[in-house]
Amino acid sequence: MASNLPASLKGRDFIHLSDLNREELNAILKLATEMKQEQKQFRVDGKTLIMLFFNYSLRTRTSFETGARQLGINAVTINAMAEGWDLEWREGTVMDGKPIEHAKDAARTLSRYADAIGVRSYPPMVSIEEDRRDELVNTFRSCSNIPVINLESAVSHPCQGLADIMTLRELFPSGMKGKKVVLSWVPNPKPVTHSVANSFLYAASLEGANVVLAHPEGFELDPAIVDAAKKTAQASGGSLNVSTDRKAAFEGTAVIYAKSWASTKFYGKWDKDAELRAQFVESWRVRPDDLRHTHRAKFMHPLPLRRNYVADDAVIDGPDCVVYQQAENRLHAQKALLVGLLG
Amino acid sequence: MASNLPASLKGRDFIHLSDLNREELNAILKLATEMKQEQKQFRVDGKTLIMLFFNYSLRTRTSFETGARQLGINAVTINAMAEGWDLEWREGTVMDGKPIEHAKDAARTLSRYADAIGVRSYPPMVSIEEDRRDELVNTFRSCSNIPVINLESAVSHPCQGLADIMTLRELFPSGMKGKKVVLSWVPNPKPVTHSVANSFLYAASLEGANVVLAHPEGFELDPAIVDAAKKTAQASGGSLNVSTDRKAAFEGTAVIYAKSWASTKFYGKWDKDAELRAQFVESWRVRPDDLRHTHRAKFMHPLPLRRNYVADDAVIDGPDCVVYQQAENRLHAQKALLVGLLG
Amino acid sequence: MASNLPASLKGRDFIHLSDLNREELNAILKLATEMKQEQKQFRVDGKTLIMLFFNYSLRTRTSFETGARQLGINAVTINAMAEGWDLEWREGTVMDGKPIEHAKDAARTLSRYADAIGVRSYPPMVSIEEDRRDELVNTFRSCSNIPVINLESAVSHPCQGLADIMTLRELFPSGMKGKKVVLSWVPNPKPVTHSVANSFLYAASLEGANVVLAHPEGFELDPAIVDAAKKTAQASGGSLNVSTDRKAAFEGTAVIYAKSWASTKFYGKWDKDAELRAQFVESWRVRPDDLRHTHRAKFMHPLPLRRNYVADDAVIDGPDCVVYQQAENRLHAQKALLVGLLG
Repeated sequence: MASNLPASLKGRDFIHLSDLNREELNAILKLATEMKQEQKQFRVDGKTLIMLFFNYSLRTRTSFETGARQLGINAVTINAMAEGWDLEWREGTVMDGKPIEHAKDAARTLSRYADAIGVRSYPPMVSIEEDRRDELVNTFRSCSNIPVINLESAVSHPCQGLADIMTLRELFPSGMKGKKVVLSWVPNPKPVTHSVANSFLYAASLEGANVVLAHPEGFELDPAIVDAAKKTAQASGGSLNVSTDRKAAFEGTAVIYAKSWASTKFYGKWDKDAELRAQFVESWRVRPDDLRHTHRAKFMHPLPLRRNYVADDAVIDGPDCVVYQQAENRLHAQKALLVGLLG
Repeated sequence: MASNLPASLKGRDFIHLSDLNREELNAILKLATEMKQEQKQFRVDGKTLIMLFFNYSLRTRTSFETGARQLGINAVTINAMAEGWDLEWREGTVMDGKPIEHAKDAARTLSRYADAIGVRSYPPMVSIEEDRRDELVNTFRSCSNIPVINLESAVSHPCQGLADIMTLRELFPSGMKGKKVVLSWVPNPKPVTHSVANSFLYAASLEGANVVLAHPEGFELDPAIVDAAKKTAQASGGSLNVSTDRKAAFEGTAVIYAKSWASTKFYGKWDKDAELRAQFVESWRVRPDDLRHTHRAKFMHPLPLRRNYVADDAVIDGPDCVVYQQAENRLHAQKALLVGLLG
Repeated sequence: MASNLPASLKGRDFIHLSDLNREELNAILKLATEMKQEQKQFRVDGKTLIMLFFNYSLRTRTSFETGARQLGINAVTINAMAEGWDLEWREGTVMDGKPIEHAKDAARTLSRYADAIGVRSYPPMVSIEEDRRDELVNTFRSCSNIPVINLESAVSHPCQGLADIMTLRELFPSGMKGKKVVLSWVPNPKPVTHSVANSFLYAASLEGANVVLAHPEGFELDPAIVDAAKKTAQASGGSLNVSTDRKAAFEGTAVIYAKSWASTKFYGKWDKDAELRAQFVESWRVRPDDLRHTHRAKFMHPLPLRRNYVADDAVIDGPDCVVYQQAENRLHAQKALLVGLLG
């Protein structure tokens, strides 16, 4: 059965959501929906996807392993972190330290075994400039001659972004134009990457929503990413504004997308970052009260989620929480993506 | 080919051996035997079983992965413990500690990906009351809308129990009625859960044996479980007695099922528990001499087994040791179970 | 489709490269080449390969999981080390320490589930005599009644050896006779096993090359292994010489096979071993200059490789580096092996 996916997808990398043009993205999500509704079944038998995880994963691992095998694809997983692996990625280093292999050699080796490589990296979180270069996944991209799928890096979580767009389209079949969408920073006892925030910012902008990026001072996202998203929003008939006024941001919103991320102000100085984060633990947690002034906002979050710290039980278990729908859409969106890249 | 399993099994959870009525249990074990003898082959193609291991496993993991795939089922494994995962299970907690996800959210997510979930939990072993509530596996049970299989919890190891009944039936084709079966506590340098002991106590009772639960003072099993097993034994035409007289217990027995478990007397006070256990290291180890006064007893143990601490090499490598047969039956019994729950 | 592999392979163990006679080896590599060129596809559907890793692995794990599944074989992997497993292998021990299971019980259990077992062991590296006995893999060999494949032990890495012979044959279609092949010790910040060196020494000798084993004083390989390889080389029309003169060794060579290994002089005394190794960090690293006096030598290494410590980037990224070809051949050679053992 023909998948009707653009041939341009075949053999491509998927590092950022913006690697896909609108036609490609629409085609993938259309196929994902057909698969979800079990109208279509595809097989890409005999292919192999090798995934390297340099950070913990529940959803990404299980949804990719499940989805790949449903398509007839061998899914081979290396939990690099749990197994003590560490890859060097800097050019020209004298490798006398902990990593016993360079990412370029791993990439070239796995290119000989597999038909696609997935990489979940985790940044050193020492320097924001270094982390923004996303060198591990980019080394895989440049040294592999097969598709590389970013399973979350310091900068992007494009598979989550794909599932989030699918979820928005299910929730709002008439589209996001004219609808307010708030991406709200939320507390976390630990500093975490900007990946999901970056990808959702782009996703909501692409959908033409009136996006508000709300966070306390000091938690600014990368200006280059915010500017690009703003241009995308405008080109899509929407807008993007940044605000530190949480209450105003929530007013009349159709969506609250909650996600924590590390401060930029004290990035790498984690003691100070912790002090700054501590100031907003109570005031930025999502509570039932916050939802009152919204336009019966849907509550979105990529999971895992620290209950009663990020958001109250009453929000998560409430009628407008769609986090499990988002999680499910990972499966379908990724299957359609794999058909496009490998089919 | 029809499996002839009762339709009542379809979609069910399997948390305790007693979740199955006698008809269901008999049908599963009949099918398991047919599969073992390669008289029947079944396929449950295209289903997915996701297993979460919060404790080490050799037999459970390999037998489930092997068996599931023989049936055409995708087996996806998360070694949560090795990978550093930790799930919260308490209701209403402010999740500001180590666990970054609540079991209820993991259960709801995996319910969207899989057709069945397997969970091996390991109790905190702080409070016996808390451990007896078995909250992790029970949260999965209540929050999943697909079958949940207990891969061993604080309280039960029902898959081991299933394989043990299958083994008893192979060893004693005329049944266990009138036969003595001793479940004997054995030494272990570490305190371990009561799960296998609880499940075997029920298994032997259900088979109508004259069961003797033998252990040193201080190692009593949960009275509620012992009482329930006693009623089951009586209803099956057998009996259940508890004894601290090891020598008398072994006299004329047809089966010695060796298993260690933590003391109840000093549960949670592990220094004292260790002192108590140390007193029985020599006297409760199973040696060739112990077998002399039995009715040529079969030696059973669920494995893994600390040789020359739990039992002497001469017992384990002797002609009446059936531990590998028990281990093999895990594979067949679990395959039949999966056919029943998913087929 | 018939594989034309000798029936003598069926059911065999593969612990050392020398377990195969020349006819068997040739047949396996012929099939591997046909598979690589996609002239033949084989299926060994429904079989199960269980692999136990007691040490880190990227290539072995991914190539075996990928290759096995391409053949229709279930590949079940236990990362014993990452998951905290530890198997006892000494006979008669009172198991009151860390290992909770004996290798013989694991071997007998897995023999009931699988059609073949793979074991990667890692030696304690306390005593060279103990490590040379290779007890873990030998216990699996003696206690399993199904084929056991050595995925690298203290003494041998036969799957790497198989791929290396395949690579030599691809590089030198007219054969190795009259060609010089240098197995050169290289630096490593840590002491590592002799396995690959032993297996390649045998491989190059079997191919009839003029083999030079080059290493600093104190890094002698097991004399029994060197003597056996010398006899093999002579019987194949080649020779084997040992040298500590690195420069003379490289003169006119067709192949440099770089590999580090622990000293024998200070084996087990790792502080002294480190001091000895430190003396050769600069002088034994492979640099572009070293290649000038060779016969445009191919650079071989089994990977993983510490760049700019073992060899310069310019060597590894140079035109005569064949390390990725070696890595790829692991996949094809192992697939042919599995067809032979299981087909």
